[in-house]
Amino acid sequence: MVIEGVSPIVDDGRFPAKRVAGDTVVIEADVFADGHDVLSAVVLHRHQSESKPLETRMTPLVNDRWRAKLGVEQLGFYFFTIEAWVDHFLTWHRDLQKREKSDLEIQFQIGLEMIRTASSRAKARDRKRLAHFVEVLEGDDDIEDKLHDVKSDELLDLMWRSSDRAHATRLECEYAIEVDRPKAVFSTWYELFPRSLGTFRDVEAQLPRIARMGFDVLYLPPIHPIGKTFRKGRNNVVNAGSNDVGSPWAIGAEEGGHKAIHAQLGTPDDFRRLIAAAKENGMEIAMDVAFQSSPDHPYAREHEEWFLKRPDNTIQYAENPPKKYQDIYPFYFESDAWRELWNELRDVFVFWMDQGVRMFRVDNPHTKPLPFWQWVIRELKKDHPDLILLSEAFTRPKIMYWLAKAGFAQSYTYFAWRNTKYELTEYFSEITKPPVSDFFRPNAWPNTPDILTEFLQYGGRPAFVIRLILAATLSANYGIYGPAFERMLHEAREPGSEEYRDSEKYEVKPWPPTEDDLSEMIAAVNGVRRENPALQQNATLRFHHTTNDEVLCYSKSAGENVVVTVVNVDPHNTQSAWLELDLAALQVDANRPFQVHDLLSGARYTWHGGRNYIQLNPHVVPAHIFRIRRRVRSERDFEYFL
Amino acid sequence: MVIEGVSPIVDDGRFPAKRVAGDTVVIEADVFADGHDVLSAVVLHRHQSESKPLETRMTPLVNDRWRAKLGVEQLGFYFFTIEAWVDHFLTWHRDLQKREKSDLEIQFQIGLEMIRTASSRAKARDRKRLAHFVEVLEGDDDIEDKLHDVKSDELLDLMWRSSDRAHATRLECEYAIEVDRPKAVFSTWYELFPRSLGTFRDVEAQLPRIARMGFDVLYLPPIHPIGKTFRKGRNNVVNAGSNDVGSPWAIGAEEGGHKAIHAQLGTPDDFRRLIAAAKENGMEIAMDVAFQSSPDHPYAREHEEWFLKRPDNTIQYAENPPKKYQDIYPFYFESDAWRELWNELRDVFVFWMDQGVRMFRVDNPHTKPLPFWQWVIRELKKDHPDLILLSEAFTRPKIMYWLAKAGFAQSYTYFAWRNTKYELTEYFSEITKPPVSDFFRPNAWPNTPDILTEFLQYGGRPAFVIRLILAATLSANYGIYGPAFERMLHEAREPGSEEYRDSEKYEVKPWPPTEDDLSEMIAAVNGVRRENPALQQNATLRFHHTTNDEVLCYSKSAGENVVVTVVNVDPHNTQSAWLELDLAALQVDANRPFQVHDLLSGARYTWHGGRNYIQLNPHVVPAHIFRIRRRVRSERDFEYFL
Repeated sequence: MVIEGVSPIVDDGRFPAKRVAGDTVVIEADVFADGHDVLSAVVLHRHQSESKPLETRMTPLVNDRWRAKLGVEQLGFYFFTIEAWVDHFLTWHRDLQKREKSDLEIQFQIGLEMIRTASSRAKARDRKRLAHFVEVLEGDDDIEDKLHDVKSDELLDLMWRSSDRAHATRLECEYAIEVDRPKAVFSTWYELFPRSLGTFRDVEAQLPRIARMGFDVLYLPPIHPIGKTFRKGRNNVVNAGSNDVGSPWAIGAEEGGHKAIHAQLGTPDDFRRLIAAAKENGMEIAMDVAFQSSPDHPYAREHEEWFLKRPDNTIQYAENPPKKYQDIYPFYFESDAWRELWNELRDVFVFWMDQGVRMFRVDNPHTKPLPFWQWVIRELKKDHPDLILLSEAFTRPKIMYWLAKAGFAQSYTYFAWRNTKYELTEYFSEITKPPVSDFFRPNAWPNTPDILTEFLQYGGRPAFVIRLILAATLSANYGIYGPAFERMLHEAREPGSEEYRDSEKYEVKPWPPTEDDLSEMIAAVNGVRRENPALQQNATLRFHHTTNDEVLCYSKSAGENVVVTVVNVDPHNTQSAWLELDLAALQVDANRPFQVHDLLSGARYTWHGGRNYIQLNPHVVPAHIFRIRRRVRSERDFEYFL
Repeated sequence: MVIEGVSPIVDDGRFPAKRVAGDTVVIEADVFADGHDVLSAVVLHRHQSESKPLETRMTPLVNDRWRAKLGVEQLGFYFFTIEAWVDHFLTWHRDLQKREKSDLEIQFQIGLEMIRTASSRAKARDRKRLAHFVEVLEGDDDIEDKLHDVKSDELLDLMWRSSDRAHATRLECEYAIEVDRPKAVFSTWYELFPRSLGTFRDVEAQLPRIARMGFDVLYLPPIHPIGKTFRKGRNNVVNAGSNDVGSPWAIGAEEGGHKAIHAQLGTPDDFRRLIAAAKENGMEIAMDVAFQSSPDHPYAREHEEWFLKRPDNTIQYAENPPKKYQDIYPFYFESDAWRELWNELRDVFVFWMDQGVRMFRVDNPHTKPLPFWQWVIRELKKDHPDLILLSEAFTRPKIMYWLAKAGFAQSYTYFAWRNTKYELTEYFSEITKPPVSDFFRPNAWPNTPDILTEFLQYGGRPAFVIRLILAATLSANYGIYGPAFERMLHEAREPGSEEYRDSEKYEVKPWPPTEDDLSEMIAAVNGVRRENPALQQNATLRFHHTTNDEVLCYSKSAGENVVVTVVNVDPHNTQSAWLELDLAALQVDANRPFQVHDLLSGARYTWHGGRNYIQLNPHVVPAHIFRIRRRVRSERDFEYFL
């Protein structure tokens, strides 16, 4: 017996495949043996909390591929393996129906022997029923009558339950599936700097507004004391003025480090209040974890052994020659005291999880050792399988993928720099299909405090709406650096830079309400996401051909819910195109008209067939988000749209 | 350090990748680590006869992919693994060049320390040279002078040879590459039934003619005594007449079994003479191994335990209900006496290998246990790594692939039933590229004694020429059931059947010389194969677009040798097309004219650019086999074609 090509598995089982609670996992494998005998196969599966596996029978598809479906409800790890065997009784039974009548007598003898042997393996109840079939075959009924009785499905079931599995082949290892909570797959992030609003109490006051816009994660950059030594000034100049507030990522000062709260933001109690208030608003707080210290961090005094020293015995600051970042000390993860350091960093997470935080955005994880992440995430999730870490690594693709395999539940992507139809199609085809989608969950951000793309700098309001709709409909996880995005902030520090001019990273920014902002469009798009399960996952993403390279068209579906998004990716000009929808893939009957309902404008159109014309003016709305409504016939014989 | 995505490997290393002696194996892997340090990586490799591995340094390509090249000359197994490490000296050296002058003094101290430590690891000769660099750095030269000296490639080489590999990461397992002799990849087979010619001596007389046609393997169906019980008559009728000779695959009679020779063919001495004569003609004899017995086989008397019994204690004959093959007893590979049976079957191979045979065509291996093949091929190749087995399995793709992974050097394919441009493109793209090409070597047959396709039955002479040229140019291994193919035999036993009418399998066929046969065309095509290394491998196969679905165009190249084949796959009509050659892939300068030389007709054309018109009349010659001759400029400044 050969069992191979098992899915879902990641890197031949070296890492778990990822799913969320409520998912149905489709487990498949190539199962075959020499010859033409009938085979049987089962998936043996268990949650980590169970030791004895359950069995689910696999069914053959085509080309020696077999499949079973497994519902996963509990968080944590499920383990599965596959067992298969040559089923001599099923083979005998299949062949029996094709044999000449003159051969049946001897075949019944062969079958009788198999039933008798199976009976000795069977449970009491089954044994009783098997005895009945023994009687039939031993009896003096007519051959035709015996044949009729033996054909019964009941006998097949009985015999299958007691099949001879002495020579069954079982895969040598158990494969893991890690089940996260559903938010790992579908979440909507809003990033703001609390100090610009004032204190945690001021942030609290903003929660209802942000929740109304449809966000369910509020992500805060570091909230810890900020170092003074070598502090950077506005626009990242080397010498800060005395009023400069510094970058929140220069973590640690006299008052404390990664477990402390910046005094101007409030007290630990205020922070716990914020967490509770967020929850009341249907939101969750995500904290920032940046494992680096300012020169003023208590660690730098108390644990010199956690840092690399230079020949002059000073601590090695961060550098990317010829650039020097003297305000930042990286940790020395390979130091002799690595174990204490690693434990301390784990305890930073534990400290905030004890306050109720279950989501973290991890800063630059790719500049820390990969094994550290693999270890620390496993450690933390042992007690808290509801933990969700977002990997902020904008680096080479293989390292981003490795971090996801190591346990990050979500990952930033290259989305911000994928603007053309070709780029978006290629990139999202790659990251939403296996093998990548089995371990990598994209979180698409049109902007961040570090990333103001050229597209946004020069595309005006249409560019912001295009990028918003693309992020929100291509990726089930998406987020915005909110105040800047709402206000369509687009001025760069200097030409060619992706830094904001007067970046909020280095100064307090008042964000007065404005007349013309994107909050209503954002709320509308997030409302569409909330109401359409199709947009709450990526697995069914499919691109459809259009006749214009500036017009992108794609669909997602979840059961009856089918959403087709059409975007004009040119922020300057009106574009028109013929869409060529793959109706078969959408399970729409090509011979009957169907309705498309634009969930942004409310307009409804009746389309016939897959080829349809659209025109999009980016200065009005650069996209349609259509819900397909299939015409169905009810029992009462009138038609309606589903 | 992460090392993954290693190639060539098969099924994550469960099976060896295949190559032939003289190949250059390109070993690649994704090698990366956190951060931005410079990495070093080596391939450690050894032939099975060596215990200490050699090292070959890998070089980075793009996207964290690294590569090394390894020449393999010896038959048998090579093993390789990969080791990589963060190279602190190379990192220091890279950064040094970007640093400000004021930083150099302290950097020299850091470098000095590294050179001193490396020196303690270095060999005596290197140590001396490293001491020189220590002196330079310690000396009182100008900083610029020191910098100049340190930049030297010699220092980089010295330091690389003594790099600190204490923390290097090495892959846990050694991956295997199995090296066969070149004939495993490039061979040209001719099949004939010796009894139709008379005796082995009569076969001997034919060798020069077959060799002149360009064949290098003469494959003989079984040459053993043939059973009489339930012997099949002409056209496979159930009751043989007294003059019927029986099928050679009904192996075994009173006189002997798998190690005996049919008396009418000659003596063991005659057979050894035939082997020697074939060798003199540049050919090799391939025998047939069919592991099954006639009821008269000595095994059936002497080793009843090797067969499955029915309830009435008779031996179970082969069957595919309702069909019965009472003239054939399959072996019972799972019997209690399996070990003795397996050993005996191995010894059948050994017996004939002792006579000098090194190629076997194995009949229906997929109806015997897969582990048997894996075991027996390993056993046999231990002493005879020059052994080549061809798998005659026409079954589901995954089983055909598994047999190849288990050790068959060559495999029959679905080629006989792939007739359209789409089918041929899809199929040959699959089987000539990794992962498949790393373990599966196609051997394409337009016909066999079991397979007379509809295409050949109804396509006339053009069909035979089309299929010949396709087989010979798409697949470096190919073969024909010779006498029938040469004579374009095309009459089926009955409509819908792929059996020959009056098949040679069941009767002796005289093959008188004919006026109109394909021998000259066959000789021409085989001559082209012999003279063009491009056609002696499959790895570089590439399909090019044409504007006609009946016109197939593909290229193969080996260094300077580039062959473009264009085939009209419609045997009935003249077809014309524009070819759209991918000149970049062929390394032809699109801006300069180049010559194409039709190796079948001798005609030469000068083409400009990739788009070229062709027209093919199947009743003349349905194909061009072009050798591309690139225009090059010699040192003496005149142009010629390469």
